[in-house]
Amino acid sequence: MDKTFGALLARMHELRDLGGLIALATWDQETYLPPKAAESRAFQLSTVQGIHHERLVDPRLGELLAWAAGNPHLTDDQRAMVRVLAEERDRAVKVPKALVQALAEAQSRGLVAWREARKANRFSVFQPALERMLALRREQADAYGHDGERYDALLEGYEPGMRVARLSPVLSALRDNLIPLVAALQSAPREVADLFEGRRFDPETQWRLTLRLLGDMGFDLEAGRQDKSIHPFSSGQNPTDVRLTTDLEEGTLSALFSTLHEGGHGLYEQGFSPAHFRTPLANAPSSGLHESQSRLWENQVGRGRPFWTHYFPVLREAFPQALADVDLDTFYTAINRVSRSLIRVDADEVTYNLHIVLRYELELLLIRDELPVDELPAAWNERMRRFLGVVPPDDTQGVLQDIHWSWGEFGYFPTYALGNLYAASLYRAAQRAMPGLEAGLARGELKPLREWLRTHVHAEGYRLPAEELVRKVTGQGLTDVDFLAYLKSKYGALYGVKL
Amino acid sequence: MDKTFGALLARMHELRDLGGLIALATWDQETYLPPKAAESRAFQLSTVQGIHHERLVDPRLGELLAWAAGNPHLTDDQRAMVRVLAEERDRAVKVPKALVQALAEAQSRGLVAWREARKANRFSVFQPALERMLALRREQADAYGHDGERYDALLEGYEPGMRVARLSPVLSALRDNLIPLVAALQSAPREVADLFEGRRFDPETQWRLTLRLLGDMGFDLEAGRQDKSIHPFSSGQNPTDVRLTTDLEEGTLSALFSTLHEGGHGLYEQGFSPAHFRTPLANAPSSGLHESQSRLWENQVGRGRPFWTHYFPVLREAFPQALADVDLDTFYTAINRVSRSLIRVDADEVTYNLHIVLRYELELLLIRDELPVDELPAAWNERMRRFLGVVPPDDTQGVLQDIHWSWGEFGYFPTYALGNLYAASLYRAAQRAMPGLEAGLARGELKPLREWLRTHVHAEGYRLPAEELVRKVTGQGLTDVDFLAYLKSKYGALYGVKL
Repeated sequence: MDKTFGALLARMHELRDLGGLIALATWDQETYLPPKAAESRAFQLSTVQGIHHERLVDPRLGELLAWAAGNPHLTDDQRAMVRVLAEERDRAVKVPKALVQALAEAQSRGLVAWREARKANRFSVFQPALERMLALRREQADAYGHDGERYDALLEGYEPGMRVARLSPVLSALRDNLIPLVAALQSAPREVADLFEGRRFDPETQWRLTLRLLGDMGFDLEAGRQDKSIHPFSSGQNPTDVRLTTDLEEGTLSALFSTLHEGGHGLYEQGFSPAHFRTPLANAPSSGLHESQSRLWENQVGRGRPFWTHYFPVLREAFPQALADVDLDTFYTAINRVSRSLIRVDADEVTYNLHIVLRYELELLLIRDELPVDELPAAWNERMRRFLGVVPPDDTQGVLQDIHWSWGEFGYFPTYALGNLYAASLYRAAQRAMPGLEAGLARGELKPLREWLRTHVHAEGYRLPAEELVRKVTGQGLTDVDFLAYLKSKYGALYGVKL
Repeated sequence: MDKTFGALLARMHELRDLGGLIALATWDQETYLPPKAAESRAFQLSTVQGIHHERLVDPRLGELLAWAAGNPHLTDDQRAMVRVLAEERDRAVKVPKALVQALAEAQSRGLVAWREARKANRFSVFQPALERMLALRREQADAYGHDGERYDALLEGYEPGMRVARLSPVLSALRDNLIPLVAALQSAPREVADLFEGRRFDPETQWRLTLRLLGDMGFDLEAGRQDKSIHPFSSGQNPTDVRLTTDLEEGTLSALFSTLHEGGHGLYEQGFSPAHFRTPLANAPSSGLHESQSRLWENQVGRGRPFWTHYFPVLREAFPQALADVDLDTFYTAINRVSRSLIRVDADEVTYNLHIVLRYELELLLIRDELPVDELPAAWNERMRRFLGVVPPDDTQGVLQDIHWSWGEFGYFPTYALGNLYAASLYRAAQRAMPGLEAGLARGELKPLREWLRTHVHAEGYRLPAEELVRKVTGQGLTDVDFLAYLKSKYGALYGVKL
């Protein structure tokens, strides 16, 4: 076998190209696929994913990676490529084919059972499928290997390097800080009404605004695009072809925030270094760090007063009738309304992480086999009462609300909270580095922030693990300090209370 | 190795799924791909085409096919699948890898040189690339094997089973019939003006009309879609996901005709038997037969008086201002205006095949090495004068007008003429089988024709070679009799001459 770095690179390119086709076929599935083609698309995806897996576990790739790992003449980037691909390959090799197939089948069945359970509004309909999925995920965790904490092996798939021993104390402290903070805001004298009730915003005008926002953020619409889908998402795999979607609803302006969110993901994908194209380094080091970019643009920027100082006049010009009686202050307050909602995806910045900690605690117990599955709804409701002071009236608005567990995604939820914490720390670092940042945002200048993020975060790709990269940029690793300071300062002022 | 038909079928499915992804990536390239992603898409396509080729030439597939070919227990359909895939595989195996690469490179260079030559308006700029391509195609023809006629080996790639010895006499006779026919029409007393000059048709209204036409034809928009692209095309590979494109131009109604054309291709793709999905039988047996379906809907139906008896009032309602002074007769005559144009893609039904015969004669000479490449422009112009009585003022409007040769497509042009001849024969057979066909068309009933074509042509898939299938349906093989009768009857009446 030809053992050169060029031969290894050719295999990296091939894997990346296959990944790009998988991303295209998945994007198409959610945007333009004719309804009757669902089954044939599933076949196509299964075939190309199978070939991707086959190429990844190919023993000759293993030999090349072993050779490269022992080669003292590689550059730092080449060494990082070898490390990242070797880790991905090792995980793929460890799961026996029978388990891969059993998991795929359990995912299909899980999704069906979850949908049926929601229709029946009864968790018990979903319970057997969830039990089966948990058993398979534990088996998979054991196949990956761990130091006694199975959840670590699953978390590794989304947040490489993160461990329960590191994560739990941070999230528990965050929970213990947020519970009284939410209570204090709820008992604040200032009441914030729901501004959007009954107002109408023309979807076509919203669409043009979202495209303008993307352009203003510095998202390159010649190296990406935006389309419509039922649920907004972003799809990368290739820095010159980054696809975002949004969902336009007449009764809200949520499309603007989802565009800022997906645009944040999109800027990350477009910001990888050309030197890393078609290699494993053109990747975020973790889901949490990826999420930090979407959250930063959606929340720190997009729910901030500087941003709307510039854009509220634009918005009122776009919707002169709907916003005739609204001023900047009212609008800014309304888009930061804190409420104890039952549904995670509707939650505000303050309560959101409580929804996450709840799920993290429960899935950790489930994977550890320390919570019988039939007790899950009660455990959910008990935490909802304790964390947020509200109790779901039924399972659909409670334990059945998210799709993740039906698909067997255990270990993914905490990355949302990591995204929020990293976003706050990175934004604070940007503020320190650029004293005029918010004055610029108030003039509609979004690109300096993109440049700073591109240089310090995006262009790094997957050279460093997420927390290490954050430490390099902000001077500290994972912490809730910046996030809590951000919340207290912003919401104290908004609600007129000392937090 | 597991020698069962199931194992062979799994390989057919895999090849078909890969083909579907190639089709998707190609469609996306022409519709939604961000401009800066052109290079990465080329990489992705090259990778997946390489894997398709690798799977096709896999010796184990060869063993399975050999086993299946000798198995007496297969059904007729299974036997046909084995035959079709074995033929495709044999051709792929015969071309050495170095030649495949040389051809790919020559195609890229050919395209660049052709574009430059058009810009410079000088054939000589393109000549070296064309000579190189011809040499490689001859080499490829020899690799495929032939009985002394290299062109046969290339034609086989588009029109399996067709041979120069069968094709040349038909096309020569057609030419000799068409030349006087065109001359007779040109000297006819009736003059037909260009109706479209200066009129404007709102593109959005055109778009809605094209979608209505597709629905009326019975094209299933839940198993396919229409988008916009610079050049209209259709993309199959999967009967539940058939994608068409159109190009809307304000100054013409050409989108309506291109939708009928691509819709005809699309109905073929949607009409394959579910029993053949994901196998080589869900294919037209030849490009010519595929083209017969597009030509039949565009010309026999879409430029016919019965069709416009129903649709002209619809059209005038859609464009009341642009068509205020036009009646059905004027419109019907205008869309069938015969003119000696220099450009093939602008040609009418009568002159079109003369453009094709010209190209066929020239490329046959080129492949046989009987025409020096530097004499090609003169040979082109001489035939234009002889066939159509006009001579191109420059190379761009002459020998450089088509992209096909730059891409090395020798053997493709005649399939356009085959499409026209087969279309006329099939339409005539449909008329015989359904005496009320044209009365129905005049009431806007297009679906009975789709049903008849589906049953007799589409659902057959690739069970029989093209000409054999046509013979089964019409009672005769390739012939110009029906086509010439159609032209004489239609254009004699239109131009008021006895033909």
